[in-house]
Amino acid sequence: MAERKPVAVVAGAGPGNGAALARRFAQAGYAIALLSRSGATHAALERELTGARGYDCDVGSGESVARAFAAVRADLGEVSVLLYNAGPGVFADVESITPEQFEASWRVNAYGALLCSRQVIPAMKTAGQGSIVFIGATASRRGGPRSAAFAPAKAAQRSLAESMARSLWPAGIHVCLIVVDGVVDLPRTRQGMPGKPDNFFIKPAAVAQIAFELTRQDPSGWSFEVEARPFGETW
Amino acid sequence: MAERKPVAVVAGAGPGNGAALARRFAQAGYAIALLSRSGATHAALERELTGARGYDCDVGSGESVARAFAAVRADLGEVSVLLYNAGPGVFADVESITPEQFEASWRVNAYGALLCSRQVIPAMKTAGQGSIVFIGATASRRGGPRSAAFAPAKAAQRSLAESMARSLWPAGIHVCLIVVDGVVDLPRTRQGMPGKPDNFFIKPAAVAQIAFELTRQDPSGWSFEVEARPFGETW
Amino acid sequence: MAERKPVAVVAGAGPGNGAALARRFAQAGYAIALLSRSGATHAALERELTGARGYDCDVGSGESVARAFAAVRADLGEVSVLLYNAGPGVFADVESITPEQFEASWRVNAYGALLCSRQVIPAMKTAGQGSIVFIGATASRRGGPRSAAFAPAKAAQRSLAESMARSLWPAGIHVCLIVVDGVVDLPRTRQGMPGKPDNFFIKPAAVAQIAFELTRQDPSGWSFEVEARPFGETW
Amino acid sequence: MAERKPVAVVAGAGPGNGAALARRFAQAGYAIALLSRSGATHAALERELTGARGYDCDVGSGESVARAFAAVRADLGEVSVLLYNAGPGVFADVESITPEQFEASWRVNAYGALLCSRQVIPAMKTAGQGSIVFIGATASRRGGPRSAAFAPAKAAQRSLAESMARSLWPAGIHVCLIVVDGVVDLPRTRQGMPGKPDNFFIKPAAVAQIAFELTRQDPSGWSFEVEARPFGETW
Repeated sequence: MAERKPVAVVAGAGPGNGAALARRFAQAGYAIALLSRSGATHAALERELTGARGYDCDVGSGESVARAFAAVRADLGEVSVLLYNAGPGVFADVESITPEQFEASWRVNAYGALLCSRQVIPAMKTAGQGSIVFIGATASRRGGPRSAAFAPAKAAQRSLAESMARSLWPAGIHVCLIVVDGVVDLPRTRQGMPGKPDNFFIKPAAVAQIAFELTRQDPSGWSFEVEARPFGETW
Repeated sequence: MAERKPVAVVAGAGPGNGAALARRFAQAGYAIALLSRSGATHAALERELTGARGYDCDVGSGESVARAFAAVRADLGEVSVLLYNAGPGVFADVESITPEQFEASWRVNAYGALLCSRQVIPAMKTAGQGSIVFIGATASRRGGPRSAAFAPAKAAQRSLAESMARSLWPAGIHVCLIVVDGVVDLPRTRQGMPGKPDNFFIKPAAVAQIAFELTRQDPSGWSFEVEARPFGETW
Repeated sequence: MAERKPVAVVAGAGPGNGAALARRFAQAGYAIALLSRSGATHAALERELTGARGYDCDVGSGESVARAFAAVRADLGEVSVLLYNAGPGVFADVESITPEQFEASWRVNAYGALLCSRQVIPAMKTAGQGSIVFIGATASRRGGPRSAAFAPAKAAQRSLAESMARSLWPAGIHVCLIVVDGVVDLPRTRQGMPGKPDNFFIKPAAVAQIAFELTRQDPSGWSFEVEARPFGETW
Repeated sequence: MAERKPVAVVAGAGPGNGAALARRFAQAGYAIALLSRSGATHAALERELTGARGYDCDVGSGESVARAFAAVRADLGEVSVLLYNAGPGVFADVESITPEQFEASWRVNAYGALLCSRQVIPAMKTAGQGSIVFIGATASRRGGPRSAAFAPAKAAQRSLAESMARSLWPAGIHVCLIVVDGVVDLPRTRQGMPGKPDNFFIKPAAVAQIAFELTRQDPSGWSFEVEARPFGETW
């Protein structure tokens, strides 16, 4: 009987970073579980990637997360790598956002990160290894005037990641964070910023490669926080 | 007719920093509105401080916050200073906390900070002045292994404060944050850490004095983030 | 016989922050020692402030520093407050600066800070109290493209201040840093940036007031790093 | 005629990180120039690694640096990768260090970093590519009580690196920093800390691998600062 592939979960499997992460880890031999709210985005990746499988999941709901991970475990086995990419942003200042937007942003970026992490930690502890990679943003580090909802959500995620790293690294679980500091190259972002040169954008494949290398690091020299920033960006 | 006193709201008016803030601003001539979940903590301060008045308020509930601030405005007038001190902590690692604790911590420290701020911003903008002071903690800056619920909540609060500072300072509203980096001197904390010397603890009056000075700074040189750390502390 | 005034040293006693620091501490009853490279800047302040006295000093030279502090001690007594304000900046990128500029910037901002601190620490330790306040800049925290000489010098100063705070606070010596994050209001800077509104600039008196309040903090809640940033500034 | 190998310079080619960097880049096909103060450390690596060549160099001396790089260029060609690993530390507090130690630490860690960088920038700019990797330490970020000489030197280096990154990335030169946050595994450090388990130490090969991957990153997603920290370390 064939050995089972190691399992990587991409939570937030939309186009861009989500799809690139799925591709990079599939290429390295992982079975990929794609978690997202709408099945539509799964279909294309399921067709493209051998061994990729989509699961409907609202990462902000404990019940939905529990159901999705139970299915992943039943279908593919225990999770070796969790790639937490969920987290769309609203961009407005404190007077313009609604409390509902503030909460929704936190629920997907931080609360869902906790829920999904708790699904994979026990088996990783038993195995004495595993990787949990959070996809952060500039807002993980700084609250800008127009990120009154997004930045607090990303800061909470970063702080959770740091707390987890400090308690889980000694158990062999590599918790880490990629700070995507720039605009990801997507048809949508290209359209929204016409005239920007190619080198303004971050290629999702570059983010995925950084994530992959993080999961390959020697435990005697792990990184917690790593930026992905386009070389032409002003920072 | 006598001129009305300027109004300071202490959200989270428990013993310790809350009471000390109330005392410091009362002494400087402010009418004090004490917001807390249970009326019990108000009574003593109302008796002690002339012009202090308690309001029952669950800062995590939009409805409760709206009702409390409407009462404050009717009783005392528009708010000049918001001192956001709400935010008890749970101390446990990512495997021990419950998602409910994670959410409750965020709701009081971050969501409530947004709700209360939104109640006072419009009048402050009209007046072209006002102060919003958040009482943070070591966890505002760092996620420790045992602050998996508290640190993300405090990090979200800090990030919100920074976003607000960047959008509201130009309107004359001084948004700032005190990082209380140590253990506050309370009967409860003294009991929990027997044998610690006096100089291990932060006196609430010292925190209150820093808050007061922040509200008196010249706008040409405002501070955003200020620590309060006992001189004998190892950091 | 009259009691001696406490002594404050202003190292880098030029116009702007240096003069404002001298004025603020003189007003509070300190005898002021003005240290700067050229006696010319002293003369006016000596005339203006009762009990202020100028000393020629190249802060980057161990011999010159030793001589100046020996004179201060002989004339005024042991130093209670050291206000380290020396540190002009060169603004150019890594390809444009010379190694000589890189070294000169470090020598005044960091090496001189060490030399002057070492002159005052022993008496402060004996007294069990004292304050050492460093005047930093935006560059203390960040290396900008055009601060290839200035930022490394200011970063070294900040790091030294932090190391000193950690070893000297427990001895009662309050080492701290003011991050002046903006352009100080001076005839020279006004001329160099014509058309800027008043609220663009930081008033030296505001920086001096922050420094003064730092020296008055209750040791149970000391601050290490405090910004002075104009409210209208974009950051 | 054979194509020339790309050239990597290891400045600070002692045992530990220096040797590991040399090995990793030699394995990837680089000609390696080993710079260190004493030829003794070169000899073994020259024998071990094909195409490695040692150069006596005092990185704190402009003349010595100019001579060494002129020889490298003549022998091996223009430099593609500069790995700046020089920088021994002295560990003592502000009262125990001497000003000479403070200066010597800065001269090797910061001033030498500038001198060596200026030797390689022009050709990298012409080529539109190149990598400059600084090997930092915990002290790059924090001034501890006993790093009064080392931390300011490392902070200056980090700040210089950040300034360089901001001005040179757009020219295609990837300036970055590895924060080695722990104790490097060496016979000397093992002896100095007897009884520490294997997982306490950082393997030099892990640091070298991170450095190598940094030089391979896609320019659309470059990292500036990356930690190397043992998984069992408390941080």
